[in-house]
Amino acid sequence: MVKGFYKRVLPSPSAVDFVSSNGKKLFLEAFQNGTMQGFNSLISYFQTQSELTYCGLASLSMVLNALAIDPGRKWKGPWRWFDESMLDSCVPLEKVKANGISFEKLVSIAHCAGAKAEPFRASHSTIDDFRKYVTKCSTSDECHVIVSYYRAALKQTGAGHYSPIGGYHVGKDMVLILDVARFKYPPHWVPLALLWEGMNYIVESTGQTRGFLLISRPHTKLDMLNFLDSNS
Amino acid sequence: MVKGFYKRVLPSPSAVDFVSSNGKKLFLEAFQNGTMQGFNSLISYFQTQSELTYCGLASLSMVLNALAIDPGRKWKGPWRWFDESMLDSCVPLEKVKANGISFEKLVSIAHCAGAKAEPFRASHSTIDDFRKYVTKCSTSDECHVIVSYYRAALKQTGAGHYSPIGGYHVGKDMVLILDVARFKYPPHWVPLALLWEGMNYIVESTGQTRGFLLISRPHTKLDMLNFLDSNS
Repeated sequence: MVKGFYKRVLPSPSAVDFVSSNGKKLFLEAFQNGTMQGFNSLISYFQTQSELTYCGLASLSMVLNALAIDPGRKWKGPWRWFDESMLDSCVPLEKVKANGISFEKLVSIAHCAGAKAEPFRASHSTIDDFRKYVTKCSTSDECHVIVSYYRAALKQTGAGHYSPIGGYHVGKDMVLILDVARFKYPPHWVPLALLWEGMNYIVESTGQTRGFLLISRPHTKLDMLNFLDSNS
Repeated sequence: MVKGFYKRVLPSPSAVDFVSSNGKKLFLEAFQNGTMQGFNSLISYFQTQSELTYCGLASLSMVLNALAIDPGRKWKGPWRWFDESMLDSCVPLEKVKANGISFEKLVSIAHCAGAKAEPFRASHSTIDDFRKYVTKCSTSDECHVIVSYYRAALKQTGAGHYSPIGGYHVGKDMVLILDVARFKYPPHWVPLALLWEGMNYIVESTGQTRGFLLISRPHTKLDMLNFLDSNS
Protein backbone atom coordinates (compact mmCIF):
# COMPACT_ATOMS: atom_id res chain seq x y z
CA MET A 1 0.00 0.00 0.00
CA VAL A 2 1.26 3.43 -0.92
CA LYS A 3 1.51 5.69 2.09
CA GLY A 4 2.60 9.26 2.59
CA PHE A 5 1.05 12.37 1.08
CA TYR A 6 0.40 13.81 -2.31
CA LYS A 7 0.56 17.46 -1.22
CA ARG A 8 -1.52 19.12 1.50
CA VAL A 9 -4.68 21.12 1.05
CA LEU A 10 -4.12 24.86 1.49
CA PRO A 11 -6.09 26.25 4.46
CA SER A 12 -9.02 28.28 3.16
CA PRO A 13 -9.88 31.17 3.09
CA SER A 14 -6.58 32.42 4.59
CA ALA A 15 -4.55 31.17 1.63
CA VAL A 16 -5.39 31.64 -2.06
CA ASP A 17 -3.81 29.16 -4.47
CA PHE A 18 -1.76 30.95 -7.17
CA VAL A 19 -3.21 28.58 -9.78
CA SER A 20 -6.89 29.18 -8.84
CA SER A 21 -8.98 31.72 -10.75
CA ASN A 22 -8.93 34.03 -7.73
CA GLY A 23 -5.16 33.57 -7.44
CA LYS A 24 -4.73 34.48 -11.10
CA LYS A 25 -7.00 37.52 -10.65
CA LEU A 26 -4.90 38.77 -7.71
CA PHE A 27 -1.77 38.14 -9.77
CA LEU A 28 -2.98 40.10 -12.79
CA GLU A 29 -4.15 43.03 -10.63
CA ALA A 30 -0.83 43.15 -8.77
CA PHE A 31 1.13 42.82 -12.03
CA GLN A 32 -0.79 45.68 -13.64
CA ASN A 33 -0.30 47.73 -10.46
CA GLY A 34 3.50 47.38 -10.71
CA THR A 35 3.97 45.36 -7.51
CA MET A 36 5.15 42.17 -9.23
CA GLN A 37 8.30 43.79 -10.65
CA GLY A 38 10.58 41.23 -8.99
CA PHE A 39 8.34 38.29 -9.91
CA ASN A 40 9.74 37.51 -13.37
CA SER A 41 13.33 37.27 -12.17
CA LEU A 42 12.52 35.29 -9.03
CA ILE A 43 10.06 32.85 -10.61
CA SER A 44 12.66 32.14 -13.31
CA TYR A 45 14.68 30.39 -10.60
CA PHE A 46 11.88 28.94 -8.46
CA GLN A 47 13.05 25.62 -7.06
CA THR A 48 12.04 22.81 -4.73
CA GLN A 49 14.04 22.36 -1.53
CA SER A 50 16.04 19.23 -2.34
CA GLU A 51 16.09 18.06 1.29
CA LEU A 52 13.31 18.39 3.85
CA THR A 53 15.57 20.67 5.96
CA TYR A 54 16.84 22.83 3.07
CA CYS A 55 14.05 25.44 2.93
CA GLY A 56 16.50 28.18 3.93
CA LEU A 57 19.15 27.13 1.42
CA ALA A 58 16.66 26.71 -1.42
CA SER A 59 15.14 30.14 -0.74
CA LEU A 60 18.58 31.72 -0.74
CA SER A 61 19.71 29.86 -3.86
CA MET A 62 16.64 31.15 -5.77
CA VAL A 63 17.32 34.71 -4.72
CA LEU A 64 21.04 34.55 -5.57
CA ASN A 65 20.24 33.28 -9.07
CA ALA A 66 17.50 35.90 -9.48
CA LEU A 67 19.97 38.64 -8.52
CA ALA A 68 22.46 37.18 -11.04
CA ILE A 69 25.15 36.76 -8.39
CA ASP A 70 28.00 34.69 -9.81
CA PRO A 71 29.18 31.99 -7.36
CA GLY A 72 32.68 32.23 -8.85
CA ARG A 73 33.03 28.46 -9.05
CA LYS A 74 31.52 25.72 -11.11
CA TRP A 75 28.33 23.85 -10.35
CA LYS A 76 28.34 21.20 -13.12
CA GLY A 77 30.25 21.08 -16.40
CA PRO A 78 31.45 24.60 -17.23
CA TRP A 79 28.51 26.33 -15.52
CA ARG A 80 28.77 28.64 -12.55
CA TRP A 81 25.38 28.52 -10.86
CA PHE A 82 23.76 28.31 -7.43
CA ASP A 83 21.85 25.43 -6.01
CA GLU A 84 21.79 24.31 -2.39
CA SER A 85 24.94 22.20 -2.86
CA MET A 86 26.89 25.39 -3.68
CA LEU A 87 26.01 26.96 -0.31
CA ASP A 88 28.53 24.90 1.63
CA SER A 89 31.19 27.55 2.22
CA CYS A 90 30.42 28.64 5.77
CA VAL A 91 28.23 25.95 7.31
CA PRO A 92 28.71 22.24 6.58
CA LEU A 93 25.79 20.91 4.52
CA GLU A 94 25.57 17.81 6.72
CA LYS A 95 24.71 20.02 9.69
CA VAL A 96 21.98 21.80 7.73
CA LYS A 97 20.68 18.45 6.53
CA ALA A 98 20.41 17.24 10.13
CA ASN A 99 19.01 20.36 11.80
CA GLY A 100 17.93 22.93 9.24
CA ILE A 101 19.40 26.38 9.54
CA SER A 102 19.14 29.27 12.00
CA PHE A 103 18.32 32.85 11.01
CA GLU A 104 21.90 34.03 11.79
CA LYS A 105 23.54 31.21 9.88
CA LEU A 106 21.42 31.91 6.82
CA VAL A 107 22.54 35.54 6.93
CA SER A 108 26.20 34.49 7.10
CA ILE A 109 25.76 32.03 4.22
CA ALA A 110 24.21 34.84 2.14
CA HIS A 111 27.24 37.03 2.90
CA CYS A 112 29.65 34.20 2.05
CA ALA A 113 27.85 33.76 -1.26
CA GLY A 114 28.44 37.41 -2.17
CA ALA A 115 25.05 38.96 -1.38
CA LYS A 116 24.04 41.80 0.88
CA ALA A 117 21.70 40.35 3.53
CA GLU A 118 19.90 42.50 6.08
CA PRO A 119 18.12 40.56 8.84
CA PHE A 120 15.01 41.87 10.61
CA ARG A 121 13.69 40.01 13.66
CA ALA A 122 9.95 40.57 14.11
CA SER A 123 10.64 41.59 17.73
CA HIS A 124 12.97 44.38 16.56
CA SER A 125 10.85 45.47 13.62
CA THR A 126 7.21 46.32 12.88
CA ILE A 127 4.57 45.16 10.44
CA ASP A 128 4.88 48.57 8.77
CA ASP A 129 8.62 48.02 8.22
CA PHE A 130 7.86 44.62 6.76
CA ARG A 131 5.24 46.09 4.42
CA LYS A 132 7.68 48.83 3.41
CA TYR A 133 10.38 46.33 2.40
CA VAL A 134 7.92 44.01 0.67
CA THR A 135 6.69 47.02 -1.31
CA LYS A 136 10.25 48.11 -2.11
CA CYS A 137 11.27 44.69 -3.45
CA SER A 138 8.01 44.04 -5.29
CA THR A 139 8.35 47.31 -7.21
CA SER A 140 11.92 46.65 -8.39
CA ASP A 141 14.24 43.88 -9.53
CA GLU A 142 16.94 44.88 -7.08
CA CYS A 143 16.07 43.03 -3.89
CA HIS A 144 14.08 40.06 -2.66
CA VAL A 145 12.55 39.23 0.72
CA ILE A 146 12.91 35.82 2.37
CA VAL A 147 10.55 35.21 5.29
CA SER A 148 11.13 32.95 8.27
CA TYR A 149 7.79 31.96 9.81
CA TYR A 150 5.89 29.46 11.86
CA ARG A 151 3.56 27.51 9.59
CA ALA A 152 1.01 26.71 12.31
CA ALA A 153 0.17 30.43 12.56
CA LEU A 154 -1.02 30.16 8.95
CA LYS A 155 -2.97 26.97 9.81
CA GLN A 156 -0.50 24.98 7.71
CA THR A 157 1.05 21.70 8.81
CA GLY A 158 4.68 21.87 9.91
CA ALA A 159 6.71 24.21 12.09
CA GLY A 160 9.41 26.72 11.12
CA HIS A 161 9.85 27.46 7.43
CA TYR A 162 11.64 29.79 5.01
CA SER A 163 10.41 30.93 1.60
CA PRO A 164 10.81 33.98 -0.63
CA ILE A 165 8.08 36.51 -1.38
CA GLY A 166 7.11 36.64 -5.07
CA GLY A 167 5.02 39.81 -5.07
CA TYR A 168 2.50 42.01 -3.29
CA HIS A 169 -1.14 42.97 -3.83
CA VAL A 170 -1.54 46.45 -2.34
CA GLY A 171 -5.35 46.61 -2.38
CA LYS A 172 -5.83 43.31 -0.57
CA ASP A 173 -2.61 43.68 1.48
CA MET A 174 -1.63 40.14 0.49
CA VAL A 175 1.76 38.66 -0.38
CA LEU A 176 2.57 35.79 -2.72
CA ILE A 177 4.61 33.12 -0.92
CA LEU A 178 6.73 31.08 -3.34
CA ASP A 179 6.78 28.07 -1.01
CA VAL A 180 9.94 26.06 -1.70
CA ALA A 181 8.28 22.94 -0.22
CA ARG A 182 6.55 22.56 -3.57
CA PHE A 183 5.74 18.90 -2.84
CA LYS A 184 3.49 20.21 -0.06
CA TYR A 185 1.93 23.56 -0.97
CA PRO A 186 1.69 25.42 -4.30
CA PRO A 187 2.56 29.14 -4.40
CA HIS A 188 -0.17 30.99 -2.51
CA TRP A 189 -1.37 34.44 -1.55
CA VAL A 190 -1.77 35.15 2.18
CA PRO A 191 -2.71 38.29 4.11
CA LEU A 192 0.50 40.14 4.97
CA ALA A 193 -0.75 40.55 8.56
CA LEU A 194 -1.20 36.80 8.95
CA LEU A 195 2.31 36.14 7.67
CA TRP A 196 3.59 38.77 10.08
CA GLU A 197 1.89 36.85 12.92
CA GLY A 198 3.75 33.73 11.78
CA MET A 199 7.03 35.71 11.81
CA ASN A 200 6.34 37.05 15.28
CA TYR A 201 6.40 33.58 16.88
CA ILE A 202 9.21 32.83 19.32
CA VAL A 203 11.57 29.98 18.40
CA GLU A 204 11.76 27.86 21.56
CA SER A 205 15.40 26.88 21.24
CA THR A 206 16.64 30.47 21.03
CA GLY A 207 13.92 32.50 22.77
CA GLN A 208 13.91 34.87 19.78
CA THR A 209 11.26 35.63 17.20
CA ARG A 210 11.46 34.77 13.52
CA GLY A 211 11.56 37.54 10.92
CA PHE A 212 12.65 38.37 7.40
CA LEU A 213 15.78 38.90 5.33
CA LEU A 214 16.28 41.57 2.70
CA ILE A 215 18.67 40.25 0.04
CA SER A 216 20.31 42.39 -2.64
CA ARG A 217 23.53 42.78 -4.62
CA PRO A 218 26.32 44.53 -2.71
CA HIS A 219 26.50 47.32 -5.30
CA THR A 220 27.75 50.39 -3.50
CA LYS A 221 31.33 50.96 -2.45
CA LEU A 222 30.26 51.11 1.20
CA ASP A 223 28.34 47.85 0.82
CA MET A 224 31.41 46.24 -0.72
CA LEU A 225 33.58 47.42 2.16
CA ASN A 226 31.07 46.08 4.70
CA PHE A 227 30.94 42.84 2.76
CA LEU A 228 34.73 42.50 2.68
CA ASP A 229 34.89 43.40 6.37
CA SER A 230 32.37 40.77 7.37
CA ASN A 231 34.21 38.13 5.34
CA SER A 232 37.79 38.97 6.24
CA MET B 1 41.56 31.26 -12.15
CA VAL B 2 37.85 30.68 -12.42
CA LYS B 3 36.85 29.28 -15.78
CA GLY B 4 33.59 28.21 -17.30
CA PHE B 5 30.51 30.36 -17.94
CA TYR B 6 28.08 32.44 -15.98
CA LYS B 7 25.16 31.97 -18.36
CA ARG B 8 25.10 32.77 -22.08
CA VAL B 9 23.80 35.90 -23.74
CA LEU B 10 20.46 35.33 -25.48
CA PRO B 11 20.71 35.90 -29.25
CA SER B 12 19.00 39.16 -30.13
CA PRO B 13 16.54 40.07 -31.59
CA SER B 14 15.28 36.50 -32.17
CA ALA B 15 14.89 35.87 -28.42
CA VAL B 16 13.27 38.22 -25.87
CA ASP B 17 14.29 37.73 -22.25
CA PHE B 18 11.24 37.07 -20.02
CA VAL B 19 12.73 39.40 -17.40
CA SER B 20 13.30 42.35 -19.79
CA SER B 21 10.74 45.14 -20.05
CA ASN B 22 9.75 43.90 -23.50
CA GLY B 23 9.47 40.34 -22.16
CA LYS B 24 7.21 41.54 -19.35
CA LYS B 25 5.10 43.49 -21.86
CA LEU B 26 4.62 40.41 -24.04
CA PHE B 27 3.78 38.41 -20.91
CA LEU B 28 1.12 40.87 -19.70
CA GLU B 29 -0.48 41.12 -23.17
CA ALA B 30 -0.59 37.34 -23.51
CA PHE B 31 -1.89 36.91 -19.95
CA GLN B 32 -4.69 39.43 -20.57
CA ASN B 33 -5.47 37.73 -23.86
CA GLY B 34 -6.04 34.37 -22.10
CA THR B 35 -3.11 32.54 -23.72
CA MET B 36 -1.12 32.08 -20.51
CA GLN B 37 -3.76 29.88 -18.85
CA GLY B 38 -1.32 27.04 -18.29
CA PHE B 39 1.47 29.35 -17.11
CA ASN B 40 0.61 29.51 -13.41
CA SER B 41 0.52 25.75 -12.98
CA LEU B 42 3.64 25.08 -15.04
CA ILE B 43 5.78 27.87 -13.59
CA SER B 44 4.89 26.65 -10.11
CA TYR B 45 7.06 23.61 -10.86
CA PHE B 46 9.74 25.19 -13.06
CA GLN B 47 13.02 23.42 -12.36
CA THR B 48 16.64 23.26 -13.47
CA GLN B 49 17.81 20.07 -15.19
CA SER B 50 19.94 18.50 -12.45
CA GLU B 51 22.34 16.88 -14.94
CA LEU B 52 23.55 18.32 -18.23
CA THR B 53 21.80 15.48 -20.09
CA TYR B 54 18.52 15.61 -18.15
CA CYS B 55 16.67 18.28 -20.18
CA GLY B 56 14.04 15.74 -21.26
CA LEU B 57 13.52 14.36 -17.76
CA ALA B 58 13.37 17.81 -16.14
CA SER B 59 10.83 19.02 -18.73
CA LEU B 60 8.67 15.96 -18.12
CA SER B 61 8.97 16.19 -14.33
CA MET B 62 7.74 19.82 -14.44
CA VAL B 63 4.76 18.88 -16.56
CA LEU B 64 3.83 15.87 -14.43
CA ASN B 65 3.83 18.03 -11.28
CA ALA B 66 1.89 20.78 -13.08
CA LEU B 67 -0.76 18.23 -14.12
CA ALA B 68 -0.88 16.98 -10.49
CA ILE B 69 -0.09 13.42 -11.51
CA ASP B 70 0.68 11.36 -8.40
CA PRO B 71 3.78 9.16 -8.85
CA GLY B 72 2.29 6.63 -6.43
CA ARG B 73 5.55 6.29 -4.53
CA LYS B 74 7.59 8.42 -2.22
CA TRP B 75 10.23 10.93 -3.24
CA LYS B 76 11.59 12.01 0.17
CA GLY B 77 10.08 11.66 3.65
CA PRO B 78 6.33 11.03 3.29
CA TRP B 79 6.03 13.04 0.05
CA ARG B 80 4.97 11.63 -3.29
CA TRP B 81 6.41 13.97 -5.88
CA PHE B 82 8.21 13.98 -9.23
CA ASP B 83 11.75 15.00 -9.89
CA GLU B 84 14.11 13.48 -12.43
CA SER B 85 15.21 10.76 -9.99
CA MET B 86 11.60 9.45 -9.94
CA LEU B 87 11.62 8.87 -13.72
CA ASP B 88 13.68 5.70 -13.51
CA SER B 89 10.95 3.13 -14.13
CA CYS B 90 11.44 2.37 -17.81
CA VAL B 91 14.90 3.61 -18.75
CA PRO B 92 17.90 3.37 -16.39
CA LEU B 93 18.93 6.83 -15.22
CA GLU B 94 22.59 5.99 -15.79
CA LYS B 95 21.88 5.58 -19.50
CA VAL B 96 20.12 8.94 -19.66
CA LYS B 97 22.96 10.53 -17.73
CA ALA B 98 25.46 9.21 -20.29
CA ASN B 99 23.54 9.87 -23.51
CA GLY B 100 20.49 12.00 -22.89
CA ILE B 101 17.16 10.66 -24.06
CA SER B 102 15.52 9.98 -27.41
CA PHE B 103 12.08 11.25 -28.42
CA GLU B 104 10.56 7.74 -28.24
CA LYS B 105 12.06 6.94 -24.86
CA LEU B 106 10.73 10.19 -23.40
CA VAL B 107 7.25 9.25 -24.62
CA SER B 108 7.50 5.84 -22.97
CA ILE B 109 8.75 7.36 -19.70
CA ALA B 110 5.77 9.74 -19.74
CA HIS B 111 3.43 6.76 -20.18
CA CYS B 112 5.18 4.84 -17.40
CA ALA B 113 4.72 7.86 -15.12
CA GLY B 114 0.96 7.82 -15.70
CA ALA B 115 0.56 10.61 -18.26
CA LYS B 116 -0.98 10.68 -21.70
CA ALA B 117 1.81 11.61 -24.14
CA GLU B 118 1.18 12.25 -27.84
CA PRO B 119 4.33 12.63 -29.95
CA PHE B 120 4.45 14.73 -33.13
CA ARG B 121 7.53 14.58 -35.34
CA ALA B 122 7.98 17.79 -37.34
CA SER B 123 8.25 15.67 -40.52
CA HIS B 124 4.80 14.16 -39.88
CA SER B 125 3.17 17.35 -38.70
CA THR B 126 2.88 20.99 -39.79
CA ILE B 127 3.57 24.37 -38.26
CA ASP B 128 -0.19 24.91 -38.20
CA ASP B 129 -0.67 21.75 -36.13
CA PHE B 130 2.02 22.93 -33.77
CA ARG B 131 0.36 26.35 -33.42
CA LYS B 132 -2.99 24.66 -32.83
CA TYR B 133 -1.67 22.55 -29.94
CA VAL B 134 0.31 25.44 -28.45
CA THR B 135 -2.91 27.50 -28.54
CA LYS B 136 -4.92 24.66 -27.03
CA CYS B 137 -2.54 24.18 -24.08
CA SER B 138 -1.95 27.88 -23.49
CA THR B 139 -5.70 28.49 -23.17
CA SER B 140 -6.27 25.75 -20.58
CA ASP B 141 -4.66 24.02 -17.61
CA GLU B 142 -5.25 20.58 -19.07
CA CYS B 143 -2.20 19.96 -21.24
CA HIS B 144 1.36 21.14 -21.73
CA VAL B 145 3.68 21.07 -24.75
CA ILE B 146 7.31 19.92 -24.53
CA VAL B 147 9.43 20.80 -27.55
CA SER B 148 12.47 18.93 -28.85
CA TYR B 149 14.62 21.27 -30.94
CA TYR B 150 18.05 22.04 -32.29
CA ARG B 151 19.46 25.03 -30.44
CA ALA B 152 21.71 26.16 -33.29
CA ALA B 153 18.62 26.95 -35.40
CA LEU B 154 17.77 29.55 -32.75
CA LYS B 155 21.37 30.83 -32.82
CA GLN B 156 21.89 29.42 -29.33
CA THR B 157 24.96 27.44 -28.27
CA GLY B 158 24.47 23.69 -27.91
CA ALA B 159 22.72 21.02 -29.95
CA GLY B 160 19.52 19.08 -29.21
CA HIS B 161 17.39 20.26 -26.31
CA TYR B 162 14.01 19.74 -24.63
CA SER B 163 11.97 22.34 -22.74
CA PRO B 164 8.30 23.03 -22.05
CA ILE B 165 6.29 25.91 -23.51
CA GLY B 166 5.01 28.35 -20.87
CA GLY B 167 2.59 30.36 -22.99
CA TYR B 168 1.76 31.95 -26.33
CA HIS B 169 1.46 35.51 -27.64
CA VAL B 170 -1.05 35.37 -30.50
CA GLY B 171 -0.41 38.85 -31.94
CA LYS B 172 3.35 38.39 -32.21
CA ASP B 173 3.09 34.62 -32.88
CA MET B 174 5.73 34.03 -30.20
CA VAL B 175 6.05 31.29 -27.59
CA LEU B 176 7.61 31.43 -24.14
CA ILE B 177 10.27 28.74 -23.73
CA LEU B 178 10.78 27.77 -20.09
CA ASP B 179 14.34 26.62 -20.73
CA VAL B 180 15.26 23.99 -18.12
CA ALA B 181 18.98 24.76 -18.64
CA ARG B 182 18.43 27.73 -16.35
CA PHE B 183 22.18 28.02 -15.71
CA LYS B 184 22.50 28.92 -19.40
CA TYR B 185 19.46 30.84 -20.64
CA PRO B 186 16.60 32.53 -18.76
CA PRO B 187 13.01 31.93 -19.94
CA HIS B 188 12.59 33.66 -23.29
CA TRP B 189 10.09 34.45 -25.99
CA VAL B 190 10.92 33.27 -29.52
CA PRO B 191 8.98 33.41 -32.81
CA LEU B 192 6.94 30.21 -33.11
CA ALA B 193 8.15 29.83 -36.71
CA LEU B 194 11.80 29.94 -35.62
CA LEU B 195 11.19 27.28 -32.98
CA TRP B 196 9.44 25.18 -35.62
CA GLU B 197 12.57 25.46 -37.77
CA GLY B 198 14.58 24.14 -34.83
CA MET B 199 12.15 21.23 -34.47
CA ASN B 200 12.35 20.44 -38.16
CA TYR B 201 16.06 19.60 -38.00
CA ILE B 202 17.07 16.01 -38.64
CA VAL B 203 18.82 14.16 -35.81
CA GLU B 204 21.88 12.59 -37.47
CA SER B 205 21.91 9.38 -35.43
CA THR B 206 18.31 8.47 -36.33
CA GLY B 207 17.68 10.27 -39.61
CA GLN B 208 14.43 11.62 -38.16
CA THR B 209 13.33 15.13 -37.33
CA ARG B 210 12.71 16.46 -33.86
CA GLY B 211 9.22 17.57 -32.83
CA PHE B 212 6.92 18.11 -29.87
CA LEU B 213 5.03 16.17 -27.21
CA LEU B 214 1.54 16.93 -25.99
CA ILE B 215 1.24 15.83 -22.35
CA SER B 216 -2.03 15.55 -20.44
CA ARG B 217 -3.80 13.49 -17.78
CA PRO B 218 -5.26 10.22 -19.06
CA HIS B 219 -8.78 11.23 -18.06
CA THR B 220 -11.12 9.46 -20.41
CA LYS B 221 -11.94 5.78 -20.28
CA LEU B 222 -10.52 5.33 -23.79
CA ASP B 223 -7.34 7.14 -22.79
CA MET B 224 -7.01 4.87 -19.77
CA LEU B 225 -7.46 1.76 -21.92
CA ASN B 226 -4.84 3.02 -24.38
CA PHE B 227 -2.55 3.79 -21.47
CA LEU B 228 -3.03 0.33 -19.94
CA ASP B 229 -2.52 -1.25 -23.38
CA SER B 230 0.72 0.56 -23.97
CA ASN B 231 2.02 -0.45 -20.56
CA SER B 232 0.90 -4.08 -20.44
